[in-house]
Amino acid sequence: MERRSFNRRMLMGGAAVATSMSLAPEAAAVPKRVKAAPAGGKERHMKLFAEQIGRDQMGYGIGNGRATIPGPLIEINEGDTLYIEFENRLDVSTGLHVHGVDYTIGNDATRLTRSLVEPGHTRTYVWRTHAPGRRADGTWQEGSAGYWHYHDHAIGSDHGTGGVSKGLYGGVVVRRQGDVLPGKTHTLVFNGTTINNGKGHTGPDIEATVGERIEFVVITHGNDFHTFHLHGHRWADNRTGLLAGPDDPSQLIDTRVVGPGVSFGFQVIAGETSGAGAWMYHCHVQRHSDSGMAGLFLVRNSDGAIPRYDDTAHRRH
Amino acid sequence: MERRSFNRRMLMGGAAVATSMSLAPEAAAVPKRVKAAPAGGKERHMKLFAEQIGRDQMGYGIGNGRATIPGPLIEINEGDTLYIEFENRLDVSTGLHVHGVDYTIGNDATRLTRSLVEPGHTRTYVWRTHAPGRRADGTWQEGSAGYWHYHDHAIGSDHGTGGVSKGLYGGVVVRRQGDVLPGKTHTLVFNGTTINNGKGHTGPDIEATVGERIEFVVITHGNDFHTFHLHGHRWADNRTGLLAGPDDPSQLIDTRVVGPGVSFGFQVIAGETSGAGAWMYHCHVQRHSDSGMAGLFLVRNSDGAIPRYDDTAHRRH
Amino acid sequence: MERRSFNRRMLMGGAAVATSMSLAPEAAAVPKRVKAAPAGGKERHMKLFAEQIGRDQMGYGIGNGRATIPGPLIEINEGDTLYIEFENRLDVSTGLHVHGVDYTIGNDATRLTRSLVEPGHTRTYVWRTHAPGRRADGTWQEGSAGYWHYHDHAIGSDHGTGGVSKGLYGGVVVRRQGDVLPGKTHTLVFNGTTINNGKGHTGPDIEATVGERIEFVVITHGNDFHTFHLHGHRWADNRTGLLAGPDDPSQLIDTRVVGPGVSFGFQVIAGETSGAGAWMYHCHVQRHSDSGMAGLFLVRNSDGAIPRYDDTAHRRH
Ligand SMILES: [Cu+2]
Ligand SMILES: [Cu+2]
Ligand SMILES: [Cu+2]
Repeated sequence: MERRSFNRRMLMGGAAVATSMSLAPEAAAVPKRVKAAPAGGKERHMKLFAEQIGRDQMGYGIGNGRATIPGPLIEINEGDTLYIEFENRLDVSTGLHVHGVDYTIGNDATRLTRSLVEPGHTRTYVWRTHAPGRRADGTWQEGSAGYWHYHDHAIGSDHGTGGVSKGLYGGVVVRRQGDVLPGKTHTLVFNGTTINNGKGHTGPDIEATVGERIEFVVITHGNDFHTFHLHGHRWADNRTGLLAGPDDPSQLIDTRVVGPGVSFGFQVIAGETSGAGAWMYHCHVQRHSDSGMAGLFLVRNSDGAIPRYDDTAHRRH
Repeated sequence: MERRSFNRRMLMGGAAVATSMSLAPEAAAVPKRVKAAPAGGKERHMKLFAEQIGRDQMGYGIGNGRATIPGPLIEINEGDTLYIEFENRLDVSTGLHVHGVDYTIGNDATRLTRSLVEPGHTRTYVWRTHAPGRRADGTWQEGSAGYWHYHDHAIGSDHGTGGVSKGLYGGVVVRRQGDVLPGKTHTLVFNGTTINNGKGHTGPDIEATVGERIEFVVITHGNDFHTFHLHGHRWADNRTGLLAGPDDPSQLIDTRVVGPGVSFGFQVIAGETSGAGAWMYHCHVQRHSDSGMAGLFLVRNSDGAIPRYDDTAHRRH
Repeated sequence: MERRSFNRRMLMGGAAVATSMSLAPEAAAVPKRVKAAPAGGKERHMKLFAEQIGRDQMGYGIGNGRATIPGPLIEINEGDTLYIEFENRLDVSTGLHVHGVDYTIGNDATRLTRSLVEPGHTRTYVWRTHAPGRRADGTWQEGSAGYWHYHDHAIGSDHGTGGVSKGLYGGVVVRRQGDVLPGKTHTLVFNGTTINNGKGHTGPDIEATVGERIEFVVITHGNDFHTFHLHGHRWADNRTGLLAGPDDPSQLIDTRVVGPGVSFGFQVIAGETSGAGAWMYHCHVQRHSDSGMAGLFLVRNSDGAIPRYDDTAHRRH
């Protein structure tokens, strides 16, 4: 449970604003006193690269920064189109394969579809998204909103077994107009028996103050199955992790079965019903938690204190 | 990814018709310009047999045909009763054990309940289904609609470990009045680390033209857990795989954790947001996809072309 | 499939009463002719202890009784506060770690948070619950209702690997005002490849008469993943296992993927669509069912008969 920041959330373009008027079908339920996602429809541009990290790892990075594991969290709104100028700084072919969003076969980023990027080269991947609505035939078309992810699909095997294992993955959040916006978002990737390829198999600690709205994006990679568990907090097993209202029949859970390629997300209000504390999150598979697949959700009181937790005792570096 | 047809869908009786009038509770949301499932309530009859396939496999077949793996897809509507005259052409006892539908204990098709069929013998299994409705006590009774399946429960062990492993399984779809009907349905069974007991562990390719409504029935058997993933398309994690409308809170997914005995289904409009292409479907467990648990969803343009895909290069036989 | 009663359901305080008037948001759908959960808000008190069972097992017990595996089922209503005077009769530190309900960090029952109980000592754990409602900011706060569980988090490892493996676990049901009450509740815990730590890996048989409303609480522990399957009955994949009504989009299932730390529950009306019989429940992983992870749901006709089942032949003790 090393303490290092891993909030790589990137708000691209138009800052989030409170939306009290909306014509979207779900908007009736939109709360008026929280920040909510705006309507999409923007063209967004970003630069992303893949590079080696030390001898054994690989990661994605943006701008002038260094690559990180997981890669930058990409947040967009339904209706947005994202142009990603992708530079391959590795010495093997790779690409940006993404889940959930709309893209033509030339953006699949796989060897089969000849949509990879050679070492040293750059190309632009285009990801589109769409809002829900009714089709001409009367059926309902789902929107793109969801907790998705991107990853390598080429290194080590045609399914990216080597690239993913070394750290080439990141989260994608597509928001619907009116979705409640979090204060902070954290990406946790169960990759093999590591969390975010962390050493000693431990996960990052996540800091928050009681009352903060914190979002978790949880992704799994590799060969193993896990059960993601968080102490003292819980979420709904649905699209947003938040119950839509009194008629939402979704199960409320604090442990979820996950496996390679699966992603989901949720928001909690830190300590809302439990108060401050060092709340563990961990894989609930005993062998995995015992080997270190765990981290802390460190929820502080407004004075910065964490009851029953000795900050210095647990600092390992 | 061998190319062979595996569409064994069987429409039994009354052809699907557009239903624009309906008194069913969900019918308000029924689109008027697509084909929808009619009301059930019919008696249906079919003949099914189990037989050896080559030296190492077993399958179910109908009529004068040969057995296939998976067995024939059985489609019925809520309210239907299905009488299956089942002939055991194997040299061991077997039966038709089914999930989801209504049947008395004499139709359980297990050794414990003495409801198997001896080699060379025939008997009729009866499967009933019912529409949802309100019970006399005021509670809501669920209907039978769902993506279910049938399999051997007797060969090799009292749980059918041998029979299922050799190919004795098939899909069942029970539709609700007003459910949108697909153009074609395909059954994919993750059995051990094979798909449909395919050689080289590869799955069948599935052909479609952009805009076609294609249904997938996904079943898992054996000892392993998998994550079913489809490129460029997605579905809702609910009964139909289609969002019921703007208030359906279900998560939209393109990867789902599955395990032995689990079945689900969904429909996509081929290439709706992604266009034509050779869209992979595969188990997202890296070791499984690398060993070949993959196939192609070959979505053609109206002129038959598949961009970035060389038909001849991938033909392996 | 040993036949022993394992209904350790404990109704604490206020007997369930039919609720025909309610202001809760979901109450509109509450049936009038079944018993339904009352409003919560009570303070409840109970005594629970942990003790050794024979040489190799451990369990929780209440009152003057002996410990059982699983421990006593704890049922409360949203809004209740439960004070558990917990006595540690083991010779190692342990505690009561719970999922789903509200508790402060001093009630986490983990070593990290210094909230364990030393051998021979007693302390009171406090579990709170809350009904759903709207927050001041307009968002919807979920209630505590759910099928949860408690377990050791300290013995053998800091995640309780030893204690859980030996039998230190039990179910928790938090009900919402208006939830339909079952006639009987049974807890089934897939722990490793045992059910409820049963010998020979077999599970308990569950007795019912056709028409009885039976509730199952299903919990998983250990390192393995399973698929819980019940013959001849099915449930909804949502909070209650019962469809809320015609607009509930949840999938109807009879097999569910589960893994360590996961819990869910559902009610069935015994034999409602299938009649009397010896209906198997089992893990659908072939290797697990073949090794004995199975039991019987023995549904009797009103005259006590179970068709196609020889009671004496299957009695093993
Ligand atoms: Cu892929
Ligand atoms: Cu079975
Ligand atoms: Cu824990």
